Amino acid sequence: MKHDKDIDGLIALMARLPGLGPRSARRAVLHLIRKRDQLLGPLAQSMQRVADTARECLNCGNVGTADLCAICADETRATGLICVVEDVGDLWAMERAGVFKGRYHVLGGTLSALDGIGPDDLRIPQLLHRLSAEHVTEVILALNATIDGQTTAHYIADQLEHRDVALSSLAQGVPIGGELDYLDDGTITAALNARKRF
Amino acid sequence: MKHDKDIDGLIALMARLPGLGPRSARRAVLHLIRKRDQLLGPLAQSMQRVADTARECLNCGNVGTADLCAICADETRATGLICVVEDVGDLWAMERAGVFKGRYHVLGGTLSALDGIGPDDLRIPQLLHRLSAEHVTEVILALNATIDGQTTAHYIADQLEHRDVALSSLAQGVPIGGELDYLDDGTITAALNARKRF
Ligand SMILES: [Zn+2]
Ligand SMILES: [Zn+2]
Repeated sequence: MKHDKDIDGLIALMARLPGLGPRSARRAVLHLIRKRDQLLGPLAQSMQRVADTARECLNCGNVGTADLCAICADETRATGLICVVEDVGDLWAMERAGVFKGRYHVLGGTLSALDGIGPDDLRIPQLLHRLSAEHVTEVILALNATIDGQTTAHYIADQLEHRDVALSSLAQGVPIGGELDYLDDGTITAALNARKRF
Repeated sequence: MKHDKDIDGLIALMARLPGLGPRSARRAVLHLIRKRDQLLGPLAQSMQRVADTARECLNCGNVGTADLCAICADETRATGLICVVEDVGDLWAMERAGVFKGRYHVLGGTLSALDGIGPDDLRIPQLLHRLSAEHVTEVILALNATIDGQTTAHYIADQLEHRDVALSSLAQGVPIGGELDYLDDGTITAALNARKRF
């Protein structure tokens, strides 16, 4: 296909987004060109701004546009209570449920013997450091109900065994093999409210 | 949801793309942030470039980044042979089939009594102008097999009746009610090769 080098280039980049194939990328680009002033221009500027400023929160691993993410910087959120999630998508899913008012810790994945991912490849040392630095009294494990997620939960439980920290995990409502990011808000709320000691 | 003003803004803009809802927009933005240097930055720049330069071809109505689109500017394409399409998506579909080597004319829609769209709302006057200006000997109507598409085809046929121009339309292979942009390349090729006199 030969329409235009710049337009072809944009289509090729759009096709690399999750959920968009070549056909939907073409439709999206055509839509963007038709809505050049209302959508394409603002989107280009928004992307550039995020590209220039997006970074990992130094404290919790969430994404944001400053050293501390919006949640870590929010003084109205409870301290001493940390919810541990695998990735930022899971953190966003928890936030959409809107029921958790503490802080988060994003591991950046799960332990995996198969993929050679050990504790130091995740943000587990940083979690242990935060326990004392932030006077944490409760840790909620909100890890996916997968084998690797549960292996990671058990590992963290072992690390916390002799610390004076209450440990719980999301329980009721998380289906076996289910991933948080695909659950509805009500399910996440129920799972949080019915959390059980680990 | 409160993560970050800039990131939330980007998600909201992405959700306005066809085929992306709020959930897939969130996933896309997370993916973009993870691939900041490889994808987000280049995409932002590509969008800005297209936003700055995209325009309608003055001759045929195709989109491009110069006064004449890549097809109109391509001297290796046959002159005197024009394929009339409803919109740019249809032109792209024809180009993907790769079998048509002439020029295009993009109407920008179809006649529609219901929507109050008449001949002067489309690029029909420009088409008639091109017939003499470009010494056109054949016009191929590649309009969608919808009621409005066929109404438009008949209107153009009437306009061309006393002109010395062969008129044909895509025939075999275009399903009733079907839209070009959803057809596979082989179907389009077959329809073009078996075009019949209108
Ligand atoms: Zn943070
Ligand atoms: Zn053109």
